[in-house]
Amino acid sequence: MTQALFFKPSYERLRDRITAIAPDLQVALYDEAGRFWLDGREVLFTDLHPEYFWVHTDLFVSPLMHEYFRLMLHSSSIKWLHTVNTGLDKLPYLELVEKGVTVTNNHAQAIAISEFVFGQVLAYYQNVYDYRAKQKEKQWKNRAFREVNGTHWLVVGFGEIGQGIAQRAKAFGATVTAVRRKKDTEGLADHVVQQSQLQEVLPTADVVVLACASNAQTRDLCNSRFLKAMKAGSVLVNIARGDLVVEAHLKAALDAGKPEYAILDVFNHEPPAQDSWVWTHPRVSLTPHTSNAGTGMRSRSETNFLDNLARMVAGQPLHNRVARSDIV
Amino acid sequence: MTQALFFKPSYERLRDRITAIAPDLQVALYDEAGRFWLDGREVLFTDLHPEYFWVHTDLFVSPLMHEYFRLMLHSSSIKWLHTVNTGLDKLPYLELVEKGVTVTNNHAQAIAISEFVFGQVLAYYQNVYDYRAKQKEKQWKNRAFREVNGTHWLVVGFGEIGQGIAQRAKAFGATVTAVRRKKDTEGLADHVVQQSQLQEVLPTADVVVLACASNAQTRDLCNSRFLKAMKAGSVLVNIARGDLVVEAHLKAALDAGKPEYAILDVFNHEPPAQDSWVWTHPRVSLTPHTSNAGTGMRSRSETNFLDNLARMVAGQPLHNRVARSDIV
Repeated sequence: MTQALFFKPSYERLRDRITAIAPDLQVALYDEAGRFWLDGREVLFTDLHPEYFWVHTDLFVSPLMHEYFRLMLHSSSIKWLHTVNTGLDKLPYLELVEKGVTVTNNHAQAIAISEFVFGQVLAYYQNVYDYRAKQKEKQWKNRAFREVNGTHWLVVGFGEIGQGIAQRAKAFGATVTAVRRKKDTEGLADHVVQQSQLQEVLPTADVVVLACASNAQTRDLCNSRFLKAMKAGSVLVNIARGDLVVEAHLKAALDAGKPEYAILDVFNHEPPAQDSWVWTHPRVSLTPHTSNAGTGMRSRSETNFLDNLARMVAGQPLHNRVARSDIV
Repeated sequence: MTQALFFKPSYERLRDRITAIAPDLQVALYDEAGRFWLDGREVLFTDLHPEYFWVHTDLFVSPLMHEYFRLMLHSSSIKWLHTVNTGLDKLPYLELVEKGVTVTNNHAQAIAISEFVFGQVLAYYQNVYDYRAKQKEKQWKNRAFREVNGTHWLVVGFGEIGQGIAQRAKAFGATVTAVRRKKDTEGLADHVVQQSQLQEVLPTADVVVLACASNAQTRDLCNSRFLKAMKAGSVLVNIARGDLVVEAHLKAALDAGKPEYAILDVFNHEPPAQDSWVWTHPRVSLTPHTSNAGTGMRSRSETNFLDNLARMVAGQPLHNRVARSDIV
């Protein structure tokens, strides 16, 4: 009988749906005190032979997350891990993939992050903060605002997050250039280029969004050379990983006026040091790694997991299967 | 020879393009001092027989706007007026239409207003003001934000503005119900209802956007009955006309908690009195009738005018022709 080891808080919320999808699955539980349970009895990890694992949001707010990863790394029975993460650079996913585990990840964040990017870009283009300040002062003063319509967006990394951003940018009348290895753009970009062509396209982009994985090819990608190629009046958005950006180079670039503004949700160190320039720079919008925190996130990621569980049970190909090259 | 009477500042910016499109058009000019010119000589209005008129943004910042309308109302030669206005309730357009003048209007605002609505709704859903305040305090504090994805939008009035809003809402994963007389929704709405069905659909809408003309059927539409039918947590957006809303009823409704928030760009009196509640209500975003002030507005509306001028010269049907029923 196939066995799973699920974190208890995650499992309990989905118990009925999991049972309906996989009635023959034997579910062992890992509880918030770090104990293991099978059929209502406390057991030892060595008594178990779990094949399926699932990392959900509950683990991230629990001190047991790293222990759950250690269990997976030591397990000789593990076959499949489904994780709520999109970025795979911060936890030992590479080790699991190299150990032969099938890892599937989650793109439930794409919707939340896409909306977040538009919330931030429109807030800057329209200067909603100024409208609010004028309201407080009871000042009635018309002024123009910048439109997204007719702008050009460069989306670096064109997974589901990049595609979600592109789809919305197109609806707003922008043109989109995707930076990705594959030539296909699912009809969502006007152009697709390789990372090696960045220097040619950066000078044409009004909005540059970093939406790629952090790996050996992309770390420090946004350095002084990248930033100097950006257009006057342009906006840099980073909702991916802090280490894509050389923060000292970004400060120099912002001070020099190009890009005009940076929307940063991720940083080299999180939270940034209290004396870091990123908190106080007048042309930085700093948010606390929160772009994925949309209200629909949990329900979508649970649906993704259940969908893959149903596929696993039916012997069908899983969605969002992670390759080694997605991580390194 | 067909004659036009154009306001000089508007004409001068487009002189070459107008000449290219209508080389045989005789252009008389109305200058900023209220004088009339033909072929470089000052003339009297009674010396002219203009058939084409054009109201552009320059007139709105000039004290001569009302005089230009008086000239049109007194003209016996006038055949066509193209105006930059979308809303036709504030100036004597009805009198011109009733006099037999062909009036065409402009929907260059649709893009700007659609973007403005999203800037405001996302700013509220994501509380970007709070992110900014937390940045100022150097506070790193994650929290969830509301998503547009999965919400239901009710768009009252489905001209180009309503359609532009619907198109963007659909790209954000919302469903859209259009309120309009025509049953067709150009594929942009999921449902279409008549104004008489409002009470049935209001309780289902997360975002209600007033985007209709102000006329005898719509004035005071948003009264206590309308507001009481709105959903808990819903947002009211008015980018159309202040007199669609009974402001005293809206205050009572906001105080009672439904709708949860009001995004108001237009008011019964503009600017509102300094002691009006709309300035200070904690659940009102007040902006100064500015939703159309996108940077691309002027260029788009000039293109619209030139396009109609080319159609007029070629004897083709004009775009955006106004019917009496669009006004009353």
